[in-house]
Amino acid sequence: MQIGVHGLVFTGEFDEAGLRAAITGTQQAGFDLLELPLMDPYAFDGALVGRMVDDHGIAMTASLGLDAAHDLSSEDAAVSRKGESLLERAIDVVAEAGGEHLCGVIYSAMQKYMVPPTEAGRAASAAALARLGDRAQAAGVTLSLEIVNRYETNIANTARGGLRFLEQVGHDDVHLHLDTYHMNIEESGMLEPVLDAGDRLRYVHIGESHRGYLGTGSVDFGSFFRGLARVGYDGPVVFESFSSAVVSESLSNTLGIWRNLWDDSADLAAHANRFIRDQLRAVETIALH
Amino acid sequence: MQIGVHGLVFTGEFDEAGLRAAITGTQQAGFDLLELPLMDPYAFDGALVGRMVDDHGIAMTASLGLDAAHDLSSEDAAVSRKGESLLERAIDVVAEAGGEHLCGVIYSAMQKYMVPPTEAGRAASAAALARLGDRAQAAGVTLSLEIVNRYETNIANTARGGLRFLEQVGHDDVHLHLDTYHMNIEESGMLEPVLDAGDRLRYVHIGESHRGYLGTGSVDFGSFFRGLARVGYDGPVVFESFSSAVVSESLSNTLGIWRNLWDDSADLAAHANRFIRDQLRAVETIALH
Amino acid sequence: MQIGVHGLVFTGEFDEAGLRAAITGTQQAGFDLLELPLMDPYAFDGALVGRMVDDHGIAMTASLGLDAAHDLSSEDAAVSRKGESLLERAIDVVAEAGGEHLCGVIYSAMQKYMVPPTEAGRAASAAALARLGDRAQAAGVTLSLEIVNRYETNIANTARGGLRFLEQVGHDDVHLHLDTYHMNIEESGMLEPVLDAGDRLRYVHIGESHRGYLGTGSVDFGSFFRGLARVGYDGPVVFESFSSAVVSESLSNTLGIWRNLWDDSADLAAHANRFIRDQLRAVETIALH
Amino acid sequence: MQIGVHGLVFTGEFDEAGLRAAITGTQQAGFDLLELPLMDPYAFDGALVGRMVDDHGIAMTASLGLDAAHDLSSEDAAVSRKGESLLERAIDVVAEAGGEHLCGVIYSAMQKYMVPPTEAGRAASAAALARLGDRAQAAGVTLSLEIVNRYETNIANTARGGLRFLEQVGHDDVHLHLDTYHMNIEESGMLEPVLDAGDRLRYVHIGESHRGYLGTGSVDFGSFFRGLARVGYDGPVVFESFSSAVVSESLSNTLGIWRNLWDDSADLAAHANRFIRDQLRAVETIALH
Repeated sequence: MQIGVHGLVFTGEFDEAGLRAAITGTQQAGFDLLELPLMDPYAFDGALVGRMVDDHGIAMTASLGLDAAHDLSSEDAAVSRKGESLLERAIDVVAEAGGEHLCGVIYSAMQKYMVPPTEAGRAASAAALARLGDRAQAAGVTLSLEIVNRYETNIANTARGGLRFLEQVGHDDVHLHLDTYHMNIEESGMLEPVLDAGDRLRYVHIGESHRGYLGTGSVDFGSFFRGLARVGYDGPVVFESFSSAVVSESLSNTLGIWRNLWDDSADLAAHANRFIRDQLRAVETIALH
Repeated sequence: MQIGVHGLVFTGEFDEAGLRAAITGTQQAGFDLLELPLMDPYAFDGALVGRMVDDHGIAMTASLGLDAAHDLSSEDAAVSRKGESLLERAIDVVAEAGGEHLCGVIYSAMQKYMVPPTEAGRAASAAALARLGDRAQAAGVTLSLEIVNRYETNIANTARGGLRFLEQVGHDDVHLHLDTYHMNIEESGMLEPVLDAGDRLRYVHIGESHRGYLGTGSVDFGSFFRGLARVGYDGPVVFESFSSAVVSESLSNTLGIWRNLWDDSADLAAHANRFIRDQLRAVETIALH
Repeated sequence: MQIGVHGLVFTGEFDEAGLRAAITGTQQAGFDLLELPLMDPYAFDGALVGRMVDDHGIAMTASLGLDAAHDLSSEDAAVSRKGESLLERAIDVVAEAGGEHLCGVIYSAMQKYMVPPTEAGRAASAAALARLGDRAQAAGVTLSLEIVNRYETNIANTARGGLRFLEQVGHDDVHLHLDTYHMNIEESGMLEPVLDAGDRLRYVHIGESHRGYLGTGSVDFGSFFRGLARVGYDGPVVFESFSSAVVSESLSNTLGIWRNLWDDSADLAAHANRFIRDQLRAVETIALH
Repeated sequence: MQIGVHGLVFTGEFDEAGLRAAITGTQQAGFDLLELPLMDPYAFDGALVGRMVDDHGIAMTASLGLDAAHDLSSEDAAVSRKGESLLERAIDVVAEAGGEHLCGVIYSAMQKYMVPPTEAGRAASAAALARLGDRAQAAGVTLSLEIVNRYETNIANTARGGLRFLEQVGHDDVHLHLDTYHMNIEESGMLEPVLDAGDRLRYVHIGESHRGYLGTGSVDFGSFFRGLARVGYDGPVVFESFSSAVVSESLSNTLGIWRNLWDDSADLAAHANRFIRDQLRAVETIALH
């Protein structure tokens, strides 16, 4: 299992200086892995990122949330096709960087929709994902659809909803990505979604209910980590937190980050790294009971 | 203490037939009070509503969320003024209907903002609320600002943030409205915000984390109800739940109601009425311990 | 599923007047079933109880906790044999009363032990239970071993510990009885023990962490009831609560009931009946999500 | 604030070798303070302990649970007087060792009582504690009464019950000691008892619901630590955990430690030290929210 952290904990800009800050911060906090937000995959230099993370002995993954102009679930075929192209590019640069995971809201726009999803839109997204699954598989990249709350997609807001959508996608290498922040809003429990997802769960985000320090909100992390142990989850476990102290033009406003929940990235990250590893260790001891 | 229910549990339309369905449903479920969504106060017949609720022996309150065209926190004075006018009308019709409470997102638009709030916008909203407070006071109506999550306002997402905004408003009769659904996302606990708000808390929404049946999500209701008892809260306690089974064009999409969380309004409402009263009763017994 | 209540909610004495009070209270609170404490099965008139519960249209079950003189897990064969005789009698009178369940601490004394269990003691208890299982099966009575906390037995304090002991018993008709009050002390979660027990779970006690009103303590009932739904549990679900307001000489002191947690049996019982049924109903709606 | 650990995490024997193991373990895990069980204060060499802890730069405190022969709340004046003598000796040796805190069940026997407390017994204990308070004050030692569950005392099982008993004691320097393990059984919340106790809270035990690894049970630590911050608690915070892997003849059986919840003291202790400090740190950040 690799324990990681989202780059926005350290920097809002992912140019070379920003990447360096994120990589150094990741390493100093004790994480194994850095998740990079791939807001613009066309501007992303996979080879450079690959060298930089290799030099520091950490792994990388990438996530993204499509915008309305690249909405894979759009009924407008041109828009959906633009989304598919962007995701093709994203798969390629992740592979170039040596990454094995592309996740996030890669099946619809990451936005507050003002209408429910349509069957045609779902079908368009599912069909594109099946094609993307082939490309990702060939590139050694696993695609995982992040289940997010009602304000960030209208396609699926729960693990069970996500599994139903995966059936529609019908590809063996397109999987689920669960995030405790979103689960706390949408699920009826923190353990059952993990059991329901089972081996279709391939990526995990650890976020507190308000996206600040772990352990200061309403997320029942104990149940979630016990669920991971119960299904033998062995994929990435990545900490996410957002504060107005670190701003990404493209991401902070989309996510509604209006509050300063922390102002010391290094302290936050080291705390989260210990929190996650300590939870995993503690859950192991239940086997003795 | 009056236990109430939001009208959208019963109907998505608030014409006379819709009102009748909501009033009957409220009464049959055992509630004391019906909260009506005042999406268009200009089309709301206060006198009619007053007669109808009186006939059935229940009380009424009203809530609303401003839209972008009436955003009280807009830096565009004309927009803010349109919001203020709408709220003046809302106060008047609530008074006409015999109501004593107007609450909700009445200080900004109820929407996913794409930028942080500005000082000028906050000041405009605060100044307008101070004037509205005078009008409301004269009309015997209490204004309570609903603290909602980051996707529904950018002004204040926690009780403490709300109290800071109340200081800016500076009016003795403009208060706070807390909602367990939003608190579960934004607060660091369910009890302390109630203590912090103290006697500035004048309105309460009871909603589950996913806005479905009470007791099936992640909200720690016990802590919240113990908090109410600790501060001696005696105002309205109103159940809110939304499902795609009952749709309001203006409200359901704004709130992101994409899922069917229930399909039997009467069962849901009676369950919630018992849940709330049973929690209040149980908490009373702690005095014996 | 039958929803029931423990007799000590209504009376501390189980003579004919006490039985009448308990049966009437059970019925008035809306329960289907009365669980009777079988502290002295030799003094228990099964035929009378059977007629009385039949007359009121409710079902009965019985529970007991062995005392030190009848400790089935004693290394002293005479003591263990006395326990076995008592349990034979208990099975017979439950069957006479038309009951289908005998549960509780029927595998050791219900007491604070001052030494760990011994292998010989466990073996003696297991062998006796295998024989008792045959007798119970023939009588149409299911035996369920109640897993209790460290202060009430030393044999098994968790569902998994109980399952290991059931393997030692090796009888298809001796099962588990879980109690939320004890689980809250000993288990690492409220859902997994139910999953682990699966179809070996045949009896359930619902108790709050301090044994008072449901919903005023630390028990995570939501997870427990979701677990019951997940395994399709269909057996008795019985409310237990103890207060110094109703005292049984033999039971209250054994259980350490030093506090007055309630003083109105009828209110407590009706509240618990609604709480349990409302939780079960709410959990059903998760299927829609 | 000093973060400490109970000696039984490291050793079951408190001879010089045992003390050395405990002191070394305390220090290596990162704790500031070692709490020593003072089961036999007459055999305790305060001067030696003082030198040993000083040499390692850690602080010490002591706790004890009276046995039946020294029950301060006994109606038998000779027994109560024996308890008082033992506690006088305990105060003296704590002071000799340079300790500033004596806590635990120092107001009754630490045992499962078989009868409720009597007024005469409570009065005897209260009067003795008032006298002991004077002696402790003179020696620079704070006495804190540990509120424990129903199976370990019959005098007071909640903070509010403890406060009522403190009124009876009537001494300004006899205070409360809360323990999360016991609170999880007896209290109606983890935050309010801290608020209720306020500045009478002078000692804290951090234990999980089953007394194993922190974070694997049902204790709501977040609420408890938020309570400590809210009242500005600044006293010792001491981790307690018991497993059958480390046995004290006098203590393990009294506490009902029948299970192996961990087998690596060093890992357990370092984990707990991080858990407590990380919770305290996280709670600090709430001030920003």
